[in-house]
Amino acid sequence: MKLIDRLHQRVMEKGHVCLGLDTDAAYLPEDFRKGFESDAAAVLAFNKEIIDSTHDIVAVYKVQIAYYEAMGLAGMETYAKTLAYLREKQAIIIADVKRGDIAKTAEMYAAAHFTGDFEADFITVSPYMGMDTLEPYFPYLATGEKGLFVLVATSNPGAPDIEGLIADDQPVYLTVGEKTAKLGEQFAGECGYSAIGGVVGCTNSQDTQRIRQRLPGMFFLIPGYGAQGGTASEIAHYLHKGSGGVVNSSRGILMSWKKPEHAGKSFAAAARDEAIAMRDDILFF
Amino acid sequence: MKLIDRLHQRVMEKGHVCLGLDTDAAYLPEDFRKGFESDAAAVLAFNKEIIDSTHDIVAVYKVQIAYYEAMGLAGMETYAKTLAYLREKQAIIIADVKRGDIAKTAEMYAAAHFTGDFEADFITVSPYMGMDTLEPYFPYLATGEKGLFVLVATSNPGAPDIEGLIADDQPVYLTVGEKTAKLGEQFAGECGYSAIGGVVGCTNSQDTQRIRQRLPGMFFLIPGYGAQGGTASEIAHYLHKGSGGVVNSSRGILMSWKKPEHAGKSFAAAARDEAIAMRDDILFF
Repeated sequence: MKLIDRLHQRVMEKGHVCLGLDTDAAYLPEDFRKGFESDAAAVLAFNKEIIDSTHDIVAVYKVQIAYYEAMGLAGMETYAKTLAYLREKQAIIIADVKRGDIAKTAEMYAAAHFTGDFEADFITVSPYMGMDTLEPYFPYLATGEKGLFVLVATSNPGAPDIEGLIADDQPVYLTVGEKTAKLGEQFAGECGYSAIGGVVGCTNSQDTQRIRQRLPGMFFLIPGYGAQGGTASEIAHYLHKGSGGVVNSSRGILMSWKKPEHAGKSFAAAARDEAIAMRDDILFF
Repeated sequence: MKLIDRLHQRVMEKGHVCLGLDTDAAYLPEDFRKGFESDAAAVLAFNKEIIDSTHDIVAVYKVQIAYYEAMGLAGMETYAKTLAYLREKQAIIIADVKRGDIAKTAEMYAAAHFTGDFEADFITVSPYMGMDTLEPYFPYLATGEKGLFVLVATSNPGAPDIEGLIADDQPVYLTVGEKTAKLGEQFAGECGYSAIGGVVGCTNSQDTQRIRQRLPGMFFLIPGYGAQGGTASEIAHYLHKGSGGVVNSSRGILMSWKKPEHAGKSFAAAARDEAIAMRDDILFF
């Protein structure tokens, strides 16, 4: 079964939660953290407990590489070991690396994140330099075993600066989305979605409806639930046919042990309960 | 002296060459490569010999992280050691990482590439998500010790897809360039250039003239000399007041030992002669 079909199936079985392992050592309970020689070791142990506690109820994990790069070589080792642990648990992994380069350099990024120590299933990519930034990944996509999420429409304050500019009578993000969808047709799975998905944020409901309407076959990675303010009602516009995308929450789950309603639970138990509540919030909206 | 002033001074003294350490093990002479236990070790030794042989005649080095990520953890160690060796030689380092993210994630990238194991002087960044992707780097820039090169106008085949779209009556890349230049004003050095520079490719001379005219205070990182087909006559439009930018060559220098005119020289001697020829080609155009 192709990767995109496996992801689709997991969403149908387990709901839409993408758990973001954007793990800053500062998110860890102090008592836990101080039991380790280094922050990199503490983060790895924390990630493993979170994964053990949630892998049966989340669709996919997204690992944000920036948090690991910030810890230097020890952090990269923790990154590699986190990915290896996820693979051991048969989890699907999105590496949130947002790489964007061309030609031989993009080939190197593809080798870096689709093989070897940093192997993931999906990676996020940034299209600023143009759609030829995507081509070096295609040989991996053609195997059916790998996929991309291309930055399309984000909801940060700066999104209007480039994504929101109007060219050819529509926002740049729609043009990017349409060009991405066209390239993705050749990598469609049985489920109808392509192995080239798109990252789309939660903005206003008019935009989200238009994005979904114009990109019907695109599987979405939707950040911003919880900590960044996205709600299930906005997200609902992106999801259809019971699938359509996954919704990421990172800090909201990783730091849920701090919330009064989880008082007395371990961080791993709190994360599980928080992820279940998020899943149900989206499923039953 | 601020970083951008030091870079300006080096260009005035040594010319415009930016030597790109985009080192693929396949670029190494076979006899040299097979003397090492691993490609990562061979690349590090190769880089050191190239650096020893060129640091007095090039303005700056650009290290393309993708080539090191592709070698996994061992590659990241070679990356860190290459940067450390450059610092030891008092070289100025551009880390070509093209990171582009927002808020806390961008803070993590800033910490990753401006401190610790992967510390560089300048890093390249991708602005697709908007100008707020740059702000987390500003505290480092404010010290006068760090700088950015923002992707503005590249010359790859896909550049028209986003950069070249016409919005507000001008190409997106000019809007990006102008917004970048405005943010850069607060980080201007004595030399008149800002610590926020721009990456601009060699396209046609009409475009290059317009880019320089509209972005007079921007220091440029110009890729594409040699292997990618840029010529000194196109580059000349970008350079003014004897400075204005640096011109990168990677493969053209690293693999110059294969050229007939360098037959019988070591790879390090060939690289030096090739870099000198490039410097003079640009200086005396």
